[in-house]
Amino acid sequence: MTRNIRLIVEYEGTGYAGWQFQAGLPTIQGELAAALKRLTGQEPKLIGASRTDAGVHAFGQTVNFHTESRIPPNGMIMGLNSLLPPDIAIKAVEEAGPEFDARRDARGKTYIYKLLNRGFPSALLRRWTWFVHKPLDISLMREGAGHMVGEKDFSSFMAAHSDSLHSVREVTSVEVRDAVEGVIEIEVRGTAFLRHMVRIMAGTLVAAGSGRIHPAQIKAIIEARDRTKATMTAPPQGLFLMKVDY
Amino acid sequence: MTRNIRLIVEYEGTGYAGWQFQAGLPTIQGELAAALKRLTGQEPKLIGASRTDAGVHAFGQTVNFHTESRIPPNGMIMGLNSLLPPDIAIKAVEEAGPEFDARRDARGKTYIYKLLNRGFPSALLRRWTWFVHKPLDISLMREGAGHMVGEKDFSSFMAAHSDSLHSVREVTSVEVRDAVEGVIEIEVRGTAFLRHMVRIMAGTLVAAGSGRIHPAQIKAIIEARDRTKATMTAPPQGLFLMKVDY
Repeated sequence: MTRNIRLIVEYEGTGYAGWQFQAGLPTIQGELAAALKRLTGQEPKLIGASRTDAGVHAFGQTVNFHTESRIPPNGMIMGLNSLLPPDIAIKAVEEAGPEFDARRDARGKTYIYKLLNRGFPSALLRRWTWFVHKPLDISLMREGAGHMVGEKDFSSFMAAHSDSLHSVREVTSVEVRDAVEGVIEIEVRGTAFLRHMVRIMAGTLVAAGSGRIHPAQIKAIIEARDRTKATMTAPPQGLFLMKVDY
Repeated sequence: MTRNIRLIVEYEGTGYAGWQFQAGLPTIQGELAAALKRLTGQEPKLIGASRTDAGVHAFGQTVNFHTESRIPPNGMIMGLNSLLPPDIAIKAVEEAGPEFDARRDARGKTYIYKLLNRGFPSALLRRWTWFVHKPLDISLMREGAGHMVGEKDFSSFMAAHSDSLHSVREVTSVEVRDAVEGVIEIEVRGTAFLRHMVRIMAGTLVAAGSGRIHPAQIKAIIEARDRTKATMTAPPQGLFLMKVDY
């Protein structure tokens, strides 16, 4: 009997060329496929909810695959965790309905982008944050974030050479939080995202917070539907895929 | 004119043989001395408040040194941070009084020990936590922690072959907190600590939380003044020196 298995996967993206398999490069999908092959003897097609970029981390990537294996969920979580490298961990293994598809059925995703905003770098947070030396005004960032919420054509916040045919996406909330040790967290929730979209949103909010653009300009940048109007793409190490809702 | 400079230093201990200089090994003190020599031309004696062990991290180690250099504090923080490796960062540079001594004058220290207590390891937290698979009962840990507070002879919680002549120390508080993603934080405050003392306290609280010992046994373990009576020393990667009070 074929089972459809759903995994919740955590990873540190630092050492990987991203989620998606690329020949000759270390990828999360590639490591997971290799571990599954050793555990079950089969190498199933792995469907990930989000194609995270090189260097991006995940606390809750969701993945599914079909298998003939009879290893129970508990055995699968222990077996995979013993076979995977230490920067990839399986948090949950569940039986899904036969039609479940981690990518197609995702109804919402939550990302957090972490900035380190203080006068000096961090030894302990350097792998998880974008270090921004110039002081940021959080109230300006929050004002800018308000212009990003809603169902909009986000072409201006899409990676150049991206192949998305439809660039309308719904962002349901953007929250800017002051955390400890100079960390600012930008939590973005939405139904789906374009390639690099969260990182371009983060870069644009930093531009607003540092006074390089006025928060109200963000409305015009989005309405222009032109990638060249937006500001820089924030680097990958600050981005975390927190969870996927179904 | 000789100045007495106080530094607040953050570091990731993973790649170091600890705070204290050891010939031929990478140490925090050695890296700091080398950076100061390049910046000022002099290699002053560095006094650290805490001799953190190999692999232990710090958010707020305090260090002082005497120098003839006239570089102002702002220039010193920028210069040192540009010369130090990325896993060591200077958070503050201040002028101290001529008699200030970071080690002798410390009136209290705060450490946090982080455990990861869940059924599966963590990709993102593995460098900062001790992974304890067996479920821990936090109320038992809190009961055990209560027996550790006060001015006591902590010989039972001292590293073997430790050279401390006096083993009476005052622990002012031990707080056990449930944090996110299965992390348990043990925050320990005290006037001073013996070598490995916080790590032995953490190991003993894990023994209490997992039911291996009864929390009330901790009182007898301390009263025995015998290192062989205590349980295991928790591994270094979960320990953070948070701050030093003067």
